[in-house]
Parts: sequence; C-alpha cells; structure tokens
Amino acid sequence: MTKICRTDMAKLYFYHAPMNSGKSMLLLAKAYNFEERSIPYLIFKSAIDTRDEGVIHSRPLGDKPCLIIRKDELFSEKFDCYNTDVKWILVDEAQFLTAAQVDDLSDLVDYAGINVICYGLRTDFQTHLFEGSKRLFEIADSIEEIKSQCDCGKKNIFNARIDKDGHVVTEGEQIEVGAEDRYKSMCRRCYKDSVK
Amino acid sequence: MTKICRTDMAKLYFYHAPMNSGKSMLLLAKAYNFEERSIPYLIFKSAIDTRDEGVIHSRPLGDKPCLIIRKDELFSEKFDCYNTDVKWILVDEAQFLTAAQVDDLSDLVDYAGINVICYGLRTDFQTHLFEGSKRLFEIADSIEEIKSQCDCGKKNIFNARIDKDGHVVTEGEQIEVGAEDRYKSMCRRCYKDSVK
Amino acid sequence: MTKICRTDMAKLYFYHAPMNSGKSMLLLAKAYNFEERSIPYLIFKSAIDTRDEGVIHSRPLGDKPCLIIRKDELFSEKFDCYNTDVKWILVDEAQFLTAAQVDDLSDLVDYAGINVICYGLRTDFQTHLFEGSKRLFEIADSIEEIKSQCDCGKKNIFNARIDKDGHVVTEGEQIEVGAEDRYKSMCRRCYKDSVK
Amino acid sequence: MTKICRTDMAKLYFYHAPMNSGKSMLLLAKAYNFEERSIPYLIFKSAIDTRDEGVIHSRPLGDKPCLIIRKDELFSEKFDCYNTDVKWILVDEAQFLTAAQVDDLSDLVDYAGINVICYGLRTDFQTHLFEGSKRLFEIADSIEEIKSQCDCGKKNIFNARIDKDGHVVTEGEQIEVGAEDRYKSMCRRCYKDSVK
Repeated sequence: MTKICRTDMAKLYFYHAPMNSGKSMLLLAKAYNFEERSIPYLIFKSAIDTRDEGVIHSRPLGDKPCLIIRKDELFSEKFDCYNTDVKWILVDEAQFLTAAQVDDLSDLVDYAGINVICYGLRTDFQTHLFEGSKRLFEIADSIEEIKSQCDCGKKNIFNARIDKDGHVVTEGEQIEVGAEDRYKSMCRRCYKDSVK
Repeated sequence: MTKICRTDMAKLYFYHAPMNSGKSMLLLAKAYNFEERSIPYLIFKSAIDTRDEGVIHSRPLGDKPCLIIRKDELFSEKFDCYNTDVKWILVDEAQFLTAAQVDDLSDLVDYAGINVICYGLRTDFQTHLFEGSKRLFEIADSIEEIKSQCDCGKKNIFNARIDKDGHVVTEGEQIEVGAEDRYKSMCRRCYKDSVK
Repeated sequence: MTKICRTDMAKLYFYHAPMNSGKSMLLLAKAYNFEERSIPYLIFKSAIDTRDEGVIHSRPLGDKPCLIIRKDELFSEKFDCYNTDVKWILVDEAQFLTAAQVDDLSDLVDYAGINVICYGLRTDFQTHLFEGSKRLFEIADSIEEIKSQCDCGKKNIFNARIDKDGHVVTEGEQIEVGAEDRYKSMCRRCYKDSVK
Repeated sequence: MTKICRTDMAKLYFYHAPMNSGKSMLLLAKAYNFEERSIPYLIFKSAIDTRDEGVIHSRPLGDKPCLIIRKDELFSEKFDCYNTDVKWILVDEAQFLTAAQVDDLSDLVDYAGINVICYGLRTDFQTHLFEGSKRLFEIADSIEEIKSQCDCGKKNIFNARIDKDGHVVTEGEQIEVGAEDRYKSMCRRCYKDSVK
C-alpha cells in the first residue's frame, strides 16, 4: 500500500460570482470553519490601490483582517511557502490578480501542496474577463459558481454599472475606484435588454 | 416573446455535507445575503426532540432564530405558501426530515414557485442515508456537496461515532441525543481502516 | 518533492440518469476514448436475470461485449485486481448492484487504485432508490447527473412506468423483466400531475 | 398556476475539454440520443479554414455530417431560428468561434429559446484561452468540464504542442493547420515540468 502524498491532492479552486452574491461571506464562513477545526490558513486580498487596508468586509459577520497582495508582489515572496504549516490560502477579489500572481498561486498548489481558493468576479461591467479571472479560467483545477438571482428569477451572470440616473453604462474604465455601490448584477437577458 | 414564469424556475437544492464542514455557517451566509438584498426568506430546522429551541447555532457568527419543523408537521401547514412574499426557504438538519416533509417541500417548489435549499448530512455513523437525505437524493433538482478534508488530506465522506476511548463505534441507535461532540468526519479509506 | 501515488487519486464516480438519457452511449464513448488512448479498462454490467448476455446495447453505435456481474458475485473475485493493468472500470445498470458489490467497488478504488465509473438509474418507477443507487449515493466520491429534458422543457427526474393504455402505474414489482419499453422519463411536476 | 414558458429554460452550455478527451464522441452520443427521442437538433462545427468539409470525425463511431460555420457568419443567419422546430444546437470546435458568434448563440438561447451546447478546448498550446472559449467563459450559463487523465494520474488541463523530437514547444502560431497529431494533453504540473 502506497503512502499518502499530500502534495498531489492540493487544488487551485476558482469560485466565480457576480457582485453582491455573498462571496466575502462564503470566504469568511470557510475561514471560520478552518479555525474551528484548527486548520492553519491565510487570507489574502488583491489590492487595487494603495489605500486598501487589509480587511475582509462583511456587514453581518463583522470585518476580519487579511493580508494584502499588491500587483507587483508574488504570494511565494510573502511567506515561506515551502516551510509552513499553512494548508489553505483564501484569496478575495481574485479578479484583480495579475496572470503572474495566479501562476504563482498554482506553483504553491503544484509544488508546495497548499490548497488555494480564489473568490472573484467573473466579468467586468462590459462583460469581459478581468486579468485574474481570465488566468483562473485558464489554469484552475476546479471552477465553481456562486449563484444569485436576478430580479426576474433567472441566474445573475453580468455586473452592470449604473449611472446616477439609474441607467446601465457601457463605456468607461474597467475599475472605477469609489463606484462600488453603482453596480447591479443581472441575468444575461435583462442585461441585454438594458443596453439595447 | 413569452413572459417570465417564476414558477418554473424554482428548484429544490440538497447541499449534503459531512459533520463539521461548516454547513450551518453556509446557511447563515446565504441568509445574510438575502437580508442584504431584501429578499424575503424563511429558515426552518428539523427538530429531533421537543427540547429544540429554534436557533441556528454558530460560534463565530452568533446564533440566529429559526422556525422549528417537527416530524408530524408539514411546511405547507406552517405558512400560507401560496400567498406569500417568501422566495427562498433554507432548511437546516435536513437529514432528519421525513420523506413526507421532503415531498411537501417539493410541492412548494413545483406549485408555489418557492426555492428551497436543504442543508444536511449525507449519511449516519453506520454510513447509511437518513430518511431525509434519502428522499432528497431521490427527488432534489440539484445535489451539491459541501466539502471538507480528512486529516489525511482526502475528502471527508463518512461521519464516524467515537466512544469515550476514542474508538470508532459501529453499533447503536441512528440518532443519539447529546452525542453531537462524539463524531469525527473521515474519508472513506480512513473510516474503513478504523473499523477493520 | 514527493512522488506521485496513483492509489490516492482513484475515485468512485456515480453518473445517475433517468431512462433514455443516453447513459449507455456515454459509457461507450468513454470506453472508445480509453481504447484510442491505449488505457486498459473493463466494462461490467449488472445482471438482473440469468438470460443476460453480456452486451452493452446501443442502436446507433452498435453493441459491445462486456462482462456480467451477478448478484452473488464480487468484482474483486472476477479478476486479480491487485495485480492488473486495468486503470478504469465502467459499470452499466449500476442501480441493480447490491450494497456489497458497491462496497467491493469502493475497495478497488481505495486499495487497488482503480477508478470506477458507475452508470445507473437514480430511482425506480415509484420514485425510490434502487439498492445499488442507494449505496452509491452513500459512498461515491463524485455524484454527477446525466441530464435529459421532459416534454415540457424541464429536467427529467423520474421514470414513470406506463401501462398498455398509456397511463402511469404506481403499483407493482420494482423490476419487471420485459417492460423496458414501458417507461417514460418525466420532470417531477409532470410526474406528480400524472399520478394525481 | 402559470403556464410553462419554454423560452426561459433554454441555456448556453460550455463543455470545455483538453485534447483527446473524447469530446467529439460525447457530442455524437448526445446527437444520437436526440435522434432516438425524436428531438430536432442541428450540429455546427466552427471552421478554421476553407477546406473544412462539414463532418464530425470519430473513428469508433464513424463520421457524421454537420453544418459548417465560418468566422464571418452568424448562426442566426444560417437558419430561421425564430421559426423552427430545432430545440438543441450542438457546436464542435467551439474554441474557434468569434466573440460575435458566441454572443449570437446566446441570443438564440435568450430570445429563441433554443438550447446550445458548445464543445471546445479550454486553452491553446501556450495555456491561453481561444477567442471562442474566452467568450464562453464570460457568458455561458453552465460551464462543465470533460475530464481526462494525464499519464501521471492527475487531471489533464493543458494541451502541449510537441515538435518532431518529442519536445514541448512554447512558441508559434495559436493555430497550426495540419499539426493536429502533435499535441499531448497534460496535467498542470507535468506541463510545467516539461517547459522548465
């Protein structure tokens, strides 16, 4: 009988979601479950600007501190991944990761035997993949969807950006800092009907 | 173009899980997400004895009141399901439901257009389905697994009952009130190795 | 870097399906793919009576010989599973397996490192699990659904038995030899409407 | 009780796969199942050059004629999709679709109520999405994986291009006509080890 090789069972998971589907709460639920079971883990959050303060926000559950990863950093440089007790890494806002950072996470999986769960948006307000979500769709071991429902009852797929008058916007920068509350997740058909 | 018929899109979901995989936290994360989005919902918990106090317990997230459903009750009798704003029902400890109660939930889905998510254990300490989980595997629209890992790194599948000396027990009643802390979830092979 | 341990990566898959969803064709597609890639495999079929002739039937693809497993046999007795090149076992009509046979298959997975895919019906004409499908829902590593659509457009879940006048029957033996063409798969709501 | 609205239940499926995982056979198995159940359907194949002859190839199952869609065509121009009996469209080589063609398929789903299943590669030999697979990851309702195993036992994720000496190539055109037999699907770690 062969011995168990932990290294070969680690996986890179991508849980993609539309906005407001509760993905940060799911990340926190996972983190609390690790704590209850005494499983060592780390939470990272991809920073989009230098003001980011290293906290996973969740109104009902309260905030929880996390590590920040900036675009010019690699995970493998942030801790000694080949000599660690950490068995799981949770990454929030994974859509903002660079391709190099996602590749680096896959090295933690493939060579250090650490499981990685990335939580992130699937697409931007123009229905295109972000750099991080694109690389995750390319190389993740497991692609799972966090579902939420459109007002019409169908599954949300897109994240529409809404202007001050409540209309869907289709032009602009991919990331607009400070516009977090001006998005509305929609099913594909309601989105199409809105931009026609 | 045909109109949207909400009734046809409701589903009966079964999220099965081993013990200590954080399923109550996932239920609460879902509930809080409904609250943030102002979606009317109800939480039920299947009662195994008359002392049950109507609360979803979660150490990190705090407790949350819920409705209790006893074995001789039907969901459709507990509220006016054909004349309600409720769009989602969350059910905890769904393994303890009777087959009639699961059938009743499926009527809420099929005829009242209410979505139902049942969270429950897959099997008992002897690796057999509970009445509720059996009926859910038979008739649910969607069967999803909440995963957790065995100490060996593989996926937990079974819930071993442990005696005071730490040994796995294979004889006894399916439900032993007060023994909640004497279970250990294990992968299939570690469980087999334990009972050999 | 640790060596790869094939034993720990084998899995027991249950692909459950309603009748006429093309599951035998999917089994054959898998088998032909193994042949194209020179991967050693075996096909077994669970026999319900002594007349069964050891063939996977498929009108469009032609028949393919297979091994027969009878209710009083174990897979581990049919070939030298600990000393074999076989990497995959495909099992058709897995709903007819005994619980002991499913447990035996899980031993091939857990101790001999052989992957096993069981194709079978989820429930009988009275909407209850078969012995084989019950045990597979209890212990399989992966539960996947082969989908087909009801005449109404929803997903088929149940297998209604139809009498000579075209009416749905709800009484009778679980297995009626020779009645194979008297079943109709239906979504849950159409089935309910038929038996009311 | 509301009437069934077929339009709202159609979906756009993306079945992504590595090379040699049997995806054309799965497409054919689906097609034959539709024929057995008298469900009207069409098969399209995305053409990469003008020599493509409109056939789904499959050694074990035989060839099957299909419609060809070229890069400058739309599906909605190839048949009267709003006035048709066709309930399902199967698309082979979907990675070669343009983004506009995938959007067009989503219109068939959203406005004509036709179900669409796209079978295609996830990534090219440099581990990047194709135009068609990129758009499908962005907008599909359902993303499913057709799995196959690397020689090492892990799941195949990448499609390595091999030169005449058997070495993995990382430079070149995304599509090299006539090089179909010079690819080898690999798990992520074996691919990384090959290109180091």
